[in-house]
Amino acid sequence: MSIRVGIYGYGNLGRGVECALRQNPDMTLAGVFTRRPPETVRTVFDGVPVYHADMAPSMRDDIDVMVICGGSATDLPVQTPMLAQYFHVVDSFDTHARIPEHFAAVDAAAKASGKVGLISVGWDPGMFSLNRLYAEALLPDGKDYTFWGKGVSQGHSDAIRRIEGVADAKQYTIPVEAALEAVRSGAEPQLSARQKHLRECFVVLKDGADAASVEQQIKTMPNYFADYDTTVHFISAEELAREHSGIPHGGFVIRTGRTGKSLENRHLIEYRLNLDSNPEFTASVLVAYARAAYRMGLEGMSGCKTVLDVPPAYLSPKSGEDLRGRLL
Amino acid sequence: MSIRVGIYGYGNLGRGVECALRQNPDMTLAGVFTRRPPETVRTVFDGVPVYHADMAPSMRDDIDVMVICGGSATDLPVQTPMLAQYFHVVDSFDTHARIPEHFAAVDAAAKASGKVGLISVGWDPGMFSLNRLYAEALLPDGKDYTFWGKGVSQGHSDAIRRIEGVADAKQYTIPVEAALEAVRSGAEPQLSARQKHLRECFVVLKDGADAASVEQQIKTMPNYFADYDTTVHFISAEELAREHSGIPHGGFVIRTGRTGKSLENRHLIEYRLNLDSNPEFTASVLVAYARAAYRMGLEGMSGCKTVLDVPPAYLSPKSGEDLRGRLL
Repeated sequence: MSIRVGIYGYGNLGRGVECALRQNPDMTLAGVFTRRPPETVRTVFDGVPVYHADMAPSMRDDIDVMVICGGSATDLPVQTPMLAQYFHVVDSFDTHARIPEHFAAVDAAAKASGKVGLISVGWDPGMFSLNRLYAEALLPDGKDYTFWGKGVSQGHSDAIRRIEGVADAKQYTIPVEAALEAVRSGAEPQLSARQKHLRECFVVLKDGADAASVEQQIKTMPNYFADYDTTVHFISAEELAREHSGIPHGGFVIRTGRTGKSLENRHLIEYRLNLDSNPEFTASVLVAYARAAYRMGLEGMSGCKTVLDVPPAYLSPKSGEDLRGRLL
Repeated sequence: MSIRVGIYGYGNLGRGVECALRQNPDMTLAGVFTRRPPETVRTVFDGVPVYHADMAPSMRDDIDVMVICGGSATDLPVQTPMLAQYFHVVDSFDTHARIPEHFAAVDAAAKASGKVGLISVGWDPGMFSLNRLYAEALLPDGKDYTFWGKGVSQGHSDAIRRIEGVADAKQYTIPVEAALEAVRSGAEPQLSARQKHLRECFVVLKDGADAASVEQQIKTMPNYFADYDTTVHFISAEELAREHSGIPHGGFVIRTGRTGKSLENRHLIEYRLNLDSNPEFTASVLVAYARAAYRMGLEGMSGCKTVLDVPPAYLSPKSGEDLRGRLL
């Protein structure tokens, strides 16, 4: 029997989930839920039922897992606990400081309904968190580092767009190669924000805007740019559309550590992602964890969980025998 | 309360487990079990109790988890099911073709005793298996590749030592850089054994041995060397001892795959290990999974499991709150 999945919230991430479900034949897309008028929403593939978000609770018997594709700032803190009353739920909540609060709210709702709520699923938080955990558990005497990029930071791009005189902008976060090498050497360096990442900005100016002033405002912007080496390129709207329309991202989780009688032996564990499409990869992670949520539910589990709690085999549609035979 | 761990079998791997336990303060080494006369065994650290292997069953109340450090060929198929009658057990069984049989034997014994038996724990099988699983589940349309090295292959070194005229030898398996790059490109190349790995041999000849004949015998040895580009260096016993006494290893698990409406976006997932000491790192993995076996046992689980079944958080001594706060 196919796992019936709903998509709640339909932006880039929701579209990615729609695509990812096509790659997982054990799952069926039961419907897309949106706050917009459903008839105005055009799905990636034809024939996908689109419902108003308010309809979701009435479909509790038609959907096994709801993948919630709202934003972390205001959507998910409300939506995930609300929907966990009716469905197993998976979200990509990524406001780090508020995870304990979100965990508690989803846990209460999911325990009351007997459902599984998987939060903070994606690649960071998500796969990167998992790799930090595994590496720390295997090499307790060591140090780990996370680098992001090369990739587009939506938050930094938005910050540039808010500057007067800027028509559009895209910001890439880029790990510093020398910092990666220093970390891989096992030297356990202390690295400042500036030493770890570069920021490269592609900016389209409005007519008559002062380039020098815009560049100065970007480079001195507190938190976002002031602590980094930042490069600003002014380009045309056409070039921005042609060369910078993608949403690539990725990064590295690296841990070095020591073992042995006198901790004389060094080890390196490195996990790397290089993603053409940040939302589509995040969506792929959400879909694999939707399968896991369904399975954990079948086994009678309930409450809030994270990627750190999920047995890896639950992510795969394959049997234990098959996985042991091919992958072990 | 500390988790009481026994080490059954005391070679390089057992010594690695002894060292790793020192790095994990929530665990205590309860004793080393050996088939040799216990008084002849010298442990890495002073004060470790050494018992004859036959004593193990009588210590069922003194040990929570037995880490079994025997060989896969003849030791583990007997030892792991036998010891699973008395303890939670962890082994590094790595004879791939016999895993189903070993799984069944350990499962029967561990279910009967109510214990947890974790088999095939290490880095391959082990962490590499996990990374193949995660990557395949996240990117169903794709292909994965495992490369080993640069590292010492014990089996290949032994094969050289069996040639007449060879006093000693060390063989390094080395991934071909061009193959790594071809895989990372996302081209999903078909690669032969020769295209993926090089073999480099350091050989000490006995007095009067014929170097040309030894080199020829190595390079044409079926299965071991004939299908690879192999380099042979003849060196002195002193140089072998000085430059090649370590047991480094490592490798790469790389998967590339595609997502999107027409599978137009490419993604790369790469996991890499670079290890100064193969047995010490394997031992570190065994110790983290010994903790997991103990925890799973506390939760009432029993039977045979592999790394694919273990919730990641069980590997860590830290609380769920702490892990979510620091690592998520």
